[in-house]
Amino acid sequence: MDDFPELSLDDIEALAVGAWVLGTGGGGSPYLGLLNMRRLYAEGHRVRLMPPGALADDDMVAVVSNMGAPLVGQERLSDSRNMARAVTLMEDHLGRGFRAIMSVEIGGNNGVQPLLAAAHLGKPVVDADAMGRAYPEAQMTSFAVGDLQPWPLTLVDPRGIEGIVAKVPSWKWMERLSRKMCVEVGSIAATCKAPRTGAEVKRWGIPHTTTQAIRLGRAIRTAQREHRDPIAAILETEDGKLLFRGKVTDITRRTTEGFLRGRAVLEGLDGWRGSGFELAFQNEFAVGWMDGEPVVMTPDLICVLDSVSGEAIGTETLRYGQRVTVVALRAPPVFLTPRGLDFVGPRAFGYDLDFRSVFA
Amino acid sequence: MDDFPELSLDDIEALAVGAWVLGTGGGGSPYLGLLNMRRLYAEGHRVRLMPPGALADDDMVAVVSNMGAPLVGQERLSDSRNMARAVTLMEDHLGRGFRAIMSVEIGGNNGVQPLLAAAHLGKPVVDADAMGRAYPEAQMTSFAVGDLQPWPLTLVDPRGIEGIVAKVPSWKWMERLSRKMCVEVGSIAATCKAPRTGAEVKRWGIPHTTTQAIRLGRAIRTAQREHRDPIAAILETEDGKLLFRGKVTDITRRTTEGFLRGRAVLEGLDGWRGSGFELAFQNEFAVGWMDGEPVVMTPDLICVLDSVSGEAIGTETLRYGQRVTVVALRAPPVFLTPRGLDFVGPRAFGYDLDFRSVFA
Repeated sequence: MDDFPELSLDDIEALAVGAWVLGTGGGGSPYLGLLNMRRLYAEGHRVRLMPPGALADDDMVAVVSNMGAPLVGQERLSDSRNMARAVTLMEDHLGRGFRAIMSVEIGGNNGVQPLLAAAHLGKPVVDADAMGRAYPEAQMTSFAVGDLQPWPLTLVDPRGIEGIVAKVPSWKWMERLSRKMCVEVGSIAATCKAPRTGAEVKRWGIPHTTTQAIRLGRAIRTAQREHRDPIAAILETEDGKLLFRGKVTDITRRTTEGFLRGRAVLEGLDGWRGSGFELAFQNEFAVGWMDGEPVVMTPDLICVLDSVSGEAIGTETLRYGQRVTVVALRAPPVFLTPRGLDFVGPRAFGYDLDFRSVFA
Repeated sequence: MDDFPELSLDDIEALAVGAWVLGTGGGGSPYLGLLNMRRLYAEGHRVRLMPPGALADDDMVAVVSNMGAPLVGQERLSDSRNMARAVTLMEDHLGRGFRAIMSVEIGGNNGVQPLLAAAHLGKPVVDADAMGRAYPEAQMTSFAVGDLQPWPLTLVDPRGIEGIVAKVPSWKWMERLSRKMCVEVGSIAATCKAPRTGAEVKRWGIPHTTTQAIRLGRAIRTAQREHRDPIAAILETEDGKLLFRGKVTDITRRTTEGFLRGRAVLEGLDGWRGSGFELAFQNEFAVGWMDGEPVVMTPDLICVLDSVSGEAIGTETLRYGQRVTVVALRAPPVFLTPRGLDFVGPRAFGYDLDFRSVFA
């Protein structure tokens, strides 16, 4: 057995809270994954966290995610064995075993999903991901920015369906093919993305994001327990920026092409009384406008938090009347390069805006 | 090398003509596959025809087809190496080589497609298929009637896309998943369907349909050459039934969900003057009505032929003003059982009709 540090259930509770903030509205609530982990820990399973630096260059790493529309993920609960099956299907396809498991996105439920597979398969989870948050599409990763091979991908669903995208000419084709399969099985599926070598994870992975999510979640939970302002704790821990405080006055949502798309309108409270804020989302919050002016945009992390508890609110659970606070957190440097912005800048989401960071 | 009889180019020319008749309007024109075969034969490739009885029980047989909407198949020409790649991708997936190659449907272009793969891979073609004609959906086969395993399936396209449906809970799910992938790559793709053992082909395959198509094509070509009525030759060779002769007065077509659907209206000529005939199709002709009464329906083969040349007319090439003759040919017995009719009877195409054969 590896001697990497074992995650405690308390770490995982904090991970779930922190990953939901890093989800920037998407990735699905980690609460359901957390329920899975509580049960697996009660059954005696344990998961160890492996620093990316401990990977050998030729180790193979499984990159997993629950793919689909978050709204559907709320209705069709995930079975932890499903995620493990996506990994073993990939091992069968490659004819080779994995050293460890990592998430393609730390944000939302996918921050917890590798732990589900890891608990079943007795493999460590790598302390890294490929987004540093959540993004809606398969090519919106640091691995794509690094021009790594986009294939193969395995996809499984609870009916016993197993699909493989064995080869594609581009990341966009991987997104198209896998999305169509995902939509056909009900807009949610467990996937094992293109496997990565240890060398690739060390060069192109976004390191220590599992630890980051745990630290963030712990800051929120500690502030809650000690009756301090959890949002102040987030801003301090992550060096974030407060953008707006208000209440939700309008929300439109549609689940289309396997995504949850929509807009939310906020009316200012406290120092923002008299101002309005509007948010557009495709699973995750993509752009925010204050009084009609775009003030924050992807890849900066746009996090909408419950103004009292400091916990994240997803694009599928945002509702009329909620008191919310909008904060921005820093994007991983890999996405701030011109090539990074091609993949995840505002134009990648259909907004004709030049990226300007709130941290610039 | 096997000592099965080599197909001559003349056999293949006849096969193309006969397979088009057995296509019952669908399966795509075999002409493009024939062009491929002429080139491959000019390059020195040869294909041998293996009787199904020569298969050992544990031989593995590749079951191939070009999947999609025939109308698209007219525009995107098939590359013979594509079909061969679907077969080798399946060999890679199985970790096992194939003894021979067969078509899932003898009707239309898919009657010729296994020859393309066979020419490249130096394997014989089995004289059998799983439809005895063409059908639009993946579960409309004698293999499905025999409740054989519906998975896996490989799918390739000329861009280099390779998809695998590794496991499904039912034939219907195989149809759904593979159809979505097919539509996404442009509504046409080379596929290798669920592999069959020699024992399965001998028990559930429809035997000698390649020979049947060659015989049928040869009858038409001989009659043309000798200035006899090719349609009379078809009816005699295949013990078919003449249903209607007329001209096309209306045709509606739409390519939807990867299928070509529509209706054709005929006005009677000769002995049918004053009568009308209507045909409904989903890739293939499914039901025919004379003066409003359903007179012929799937699984009976409904063949629409050029009244002069006797050659088949596809649902994608049928056009206003054509002089056509509608004939029925006999369905393979496996589809006439109650279970067979569940898969390919009129209700499987959405028509609330009890099957009545014109040969009853």
